[in-house]
Amino acid sequence: MAASVNAAKGSGTRTGEAAPSARTRVRRRPERGRYDRETVHAILDEGLVCQVAFAVEGQPFAIPTAYARDGETLYLHGSPASRMLRSLAGGIPVCASVTLLDGLVLARSAFHHSMNYRSVVVLGRARLVEDAEERLRAMRALVEHVAPGRWADTRQPSAKELAQTCVLALPLDEASAKVRSGPPLDSEEDHALPHWAGVIPLRLVPEAAVPDPLLAPGIAEPAYAGRYRRPGARSAS
Amino acid sequence: MAASVNAAKGSGTRTGEAAPSARTRVRRRPERGRYDRETVHAILDEGLVCQVAFAVEGQPFAIPTAYARDGETLYLHGSPASRMLRSLAGGIPVCASVTLLDGLVLARSAFHHSMNYRSVVVLGRARLVEDAEERLRAMRALVEHVAPGRWADTRQPSAKELAQTCVLALPLDEASAKVRSGPPLDSEEDHALPHWAGVIPLRLVPEAAVPDPLLAPGIAEPAYAGRYRRPGARSAS
Repeated sequence: MAASVNAAKGSGTRTGEAAPSARTRVRRRPERGRYDRETVHAILDEGLVCQVAFAVEGQPFAIPTAYARDGETLYLHGSPASRMLRSLAGGIPVCASVTLLDGLVLARSAFHHSMNYRSVVVLGRARLVEDAEERLRAMRALVEHVAPGRWADTRQPSAKELAQTCVLALPLDEASAKVRSGPPLDSEEDHALPHWAGVIPLRLVPEAAVPDPLLAPGIAEPAYAGRYRRPGARSAS
Repeated sequence: MAASVNAAKGSGTRTGEAAPSARTRVRRRPERGRYDRETVHAILDEGLVCQVAFAVEGQPFAIPTAYARDGETLYLHGSPASRMLRSLAGGIPVCASVTLLDGLVLARSAFHHSMNYRSVVVLGRARLVEDAEERLRAMRALVEHVAPGRWADTRQPSAKELAQTCVLALPLDEASAKVRSGPPLDSEEDHALPHWAGVIPLRLVPEAAVPDPLLAPGIAEPAYAGRYRRPGARSAS
């Protein structure tokens, strides 16, 4: 990222589809901007944590939280006692940011060091989900986002637990993606320098599942845990 | 994270050292709060990307960017044309958030699904680094943060490149960490349910380095690329 930080407002060259709004248009390194739904959805579906930015009394916060996408809606959840969720439920402007780090880009010049990444930034206002059916659907989406098939293999929320869960919905109307991939981009006059240059790919890898020490005997490890894999994740090299 | 999202303001039980300010105190799940410098530094040193939150005309943004820690200072950098950096250089309140995802926590109950993670949130105001020597030191820190030893193995910034780089310094005075680890925490009455429960550990793994296709012949792969490892990263299981 480095010298390629994204300022999400202003003008810039667009690649492919147009940005959904002026303020979601990628301005720094506009050639990295992606606005098609497929790219935005794929990044959101592969990611596990989003950073939710909101301001309280002029101080911005960025707080990591779980999320799930359902169509063109991003669901967030948490305790009704959470200041973040209570603040957002009031309809204040919010930003949700998901970043997948794909590699470290080592250029010959210190200046051109960079990272390969895929990121999505969503701007908007969150809506408190009050409808019980939608809230349950959101909780299902949140569990299924982590491990497809898991929802059917859990004790589903009780009325009390549902009451203890605050669910927010953020529309994806103003979402944009930014993608960098490929080798370092040194200036031509630096190509003959004696420094190694290249990319160190990075991958989020699941390890062997660790059963709960309290697990009752005779319960087999489900495939979604034993062969865990993110959707769209690059396969091992 | 889920029902454990962090609201960084308000009161709460403290673990170990005290929070540096009321607004950095972890309120949701206060038992997960960590305020000692060692924990905060270790998370920042292992991470590669931070999300920088700031508000422009009332709209918060969270933008992924590279960073480095030097003592009690977090350095960010980018193009002077970046709206983010220009906004922050004006001394507006900012939040930098780093999250390391360690695992997925699958409980028997949908409600108690969670994640294992280590995160740091830094609040404050960034200072534009105008001193040339400090700016160069920051750029060195940014490169060394990615791969220790790399700075000496690069072409270092020219006067023109230095002029093209905007460096910001964010003090770590108001930094707090939040950590979850260990197995799921189902209610006791759920322990006998027939659902598997446990943790799927996740690890950010470097793969074989990919040399730049334009790499001059005879340049050996340096150890920091061939055996890349984050400081403090858990070893493979």
